[in-house]
Amino acid sequence: MSQFQVTILGCGSAMPTTLHNPPSQLVNMNGKLFMIDCGEGTQLQMRKFKARMSKLQGLFISHLHGDHFFGLPGLITTLSMLGRTNDLDIYAHGEIRLMLNPLLMYLGHHMQFKINLIPLNPEGHELLLEDESIRISTFPLKHRIPANGFRFEVKKSPRRILREKVDRYQVPVEQLRAIKEGADFVAVDGTVVSNNRLTTPGNPSRAYAYCSDTAYHPGIVPYIKGVDLLFHEATFAESERERAAETYHSTAREAAEIAKMAEVKRLVIGHYSSRYNEIGILLKEAVETFPNSELAVEGKVFDL
Amino acid sequence: MSQFQVTILGCGSAMPTTLHNPPSQLVNMNGKLFMIDCGEGTQLQMRKFKARMSKLQGLFISHLHGDHFFGLPGLITTLSMLGRTNDLDIYAHGEIRLMLNPLLMYLGHHMQFKINLIPLNPEGHELLLEDESIRISTFPLKHRIPANGFRFEVKKSPRRILREKVDRYQVPVEQLRAIKEGADFVAVDGTVVSNNRLTTPGNPSRAYAYCSDTAYHPGIVPYIKGVDLLFHEATFAESERERAAETYHSTAREAAEIAKMAEVKRLVIGHYSSRYNEIGILLKEAVETFPNSELAVEGKVFDL
Repeated sequence: MSQFQVTILGCGSAMPTTLHNPPSQLVNMNGKLFMIDCGEGTQLQMRKFKARMSKLQGLFISHLHGDHFFGLPGLITTLSMLGRTNDLDIYAHGEIRLMLNPLLMYLGHHMQFKINLIPLNPEGHELLLEDESIRISTFPLKHRIPANGFRFEVKKSPRRILREKVDRYQVPVEQLRAIKEGADFVAVDGTVVSNNRLTTPGNPSRAYAYCSDTAYHPGIVPYIKGVDLLFHEATFAESERERAAETYHSTAREAAEIAKMAEVKRLVIGHYSSRYNEIGILLKEAVETFPNSELAVEGKVFDL
Repeated sequence: MSQFQVTILGCGSAMPTTLHNPPSQLVNMNGKLFMIDCGEGTQLQMRKFKARMSKLQGLFISHLHGDHFFGLPGLITTLSMLGRTNDLDIYAHGEIRLMLNPLLMYLGHHMQFKINLIPLNPEGHELLLEDESIRISTFPLKHRIPANGFRFEVKKSPRRILREKVDRYQVPVEQLRAIKEGADFVAVDGTVVSNNRLTTPGNPSRAYAYCSDTAYHPGIVPYIKGVDLLFHEATFAESERERAAETYHSTAREAAEIAKMAEVKRLVIGHYSSRYNEIGILLKEAVETFPNSELAVEGKVFDL
């Protein structure tokens, strides 16, 4: 099966601790590498976990709180020093220009690659990127400032041709495409060879959704329905439910409720408040509502 | 003796590695806490080494290469979240405004403390700060962009009164100041009591100089003459002397030559190029020219 991996680089939150790094994740889909959020120190985490910085194709910044993007200047500078020439696409709310542009101007003459700043629409559901095998879209979250979640999808792959069978039935080349898409083969003499004798199933589609930072917001359920892996922030435990609501964050139980409503397959929680030295209590809480819950931890890799 | 400590938070250089953090140091003089340079991840290093972030009084940024200041946004934001109300003085080249102002504007309404940006003069020797016990000055280095070194000095403290002696000789209170400054006591009847019977020596002055980033530049010697501790960048070994000159950096031997010329007491080298996994070779080289050389390492504390 083709590669679809999520690597946690940082799963702390705004107040830095010695236990967790500010938020950042890597998403690898069929060898295409994307980053979600880029808190301070992210480039150091990439090195620590031996991520191939040069393979980075695009960055998705959920919202403009510093813990989600203060690592950008350092990352961009290092990519420049490494001699990058490919464009880098950054999907973020438009105001990021105010903070990035002076930096880019300052570095300008040294940068040998172009940065494309693609503004996120904080209101709507939007397709951001699509090619023959992947699809990345965004949807609004509910936070103190405009914030967007992301859905990363590896499309269902076509059925796989069984070479020895198509040779045996002398299937003409021009019919192979239809057969990959599920068609039976009708021979010149009228014989029908059913598709399942000529092919094996392709890979099903797989999807990963990232929801942080957000208050409890059932409105996101349609956008994350049935995903194979959901990352949902769980800044607080239920005992801090009021504080979570005040700060437009979620509790571990709320994250699990969303996972249950959206009928996702697996839930990963993160963006832990600095008050928790021991994050097991957050897991315990999530599991009570959604058994297939896991903790994000720096360096952990999730395979879809 | 009053406290004068230098703590290394980061002693790597521009290309991040898993071994060293981007440059930053803390200087504690009589309980007044200052920071020199603030590379990405510095606030995380402060937490790691249990530095009292709230006690930070001023920051000195040597030059505007990203590895020396990308940690500022995160540090400022965290100070704000911690509820700081005292002003924070940042001494840096004026162009830093371009990069800091948008950030401060963005954070603006949440910041309960004022940042004073005091521009550095890249040309001259200047006094930056002085009070009754400390003096901080700056001087030009030789780098690809304007860069300044810093000299931190704890002033010589006045002589210490021996209480039982001044009582015995019935020295009037109004003469104590002169005695602290070295005067003898002349009694009403003409008896002279010499100063060294009334006082013990105060502390001598102590000085720390920070020189990074810079090419080999004997012009700095007058500004760092006789300091107790000199930090001088040693990005490269002598074998890379040409590369050092091209990039306006120094070799370990050159750092040691400067230390020797300036007759400093101790030399600390740092700002290691990412090419050195093993920094012992840099120390070896420095020691050949200046025996009292040491390596900077993250977390190491130097007492003056």
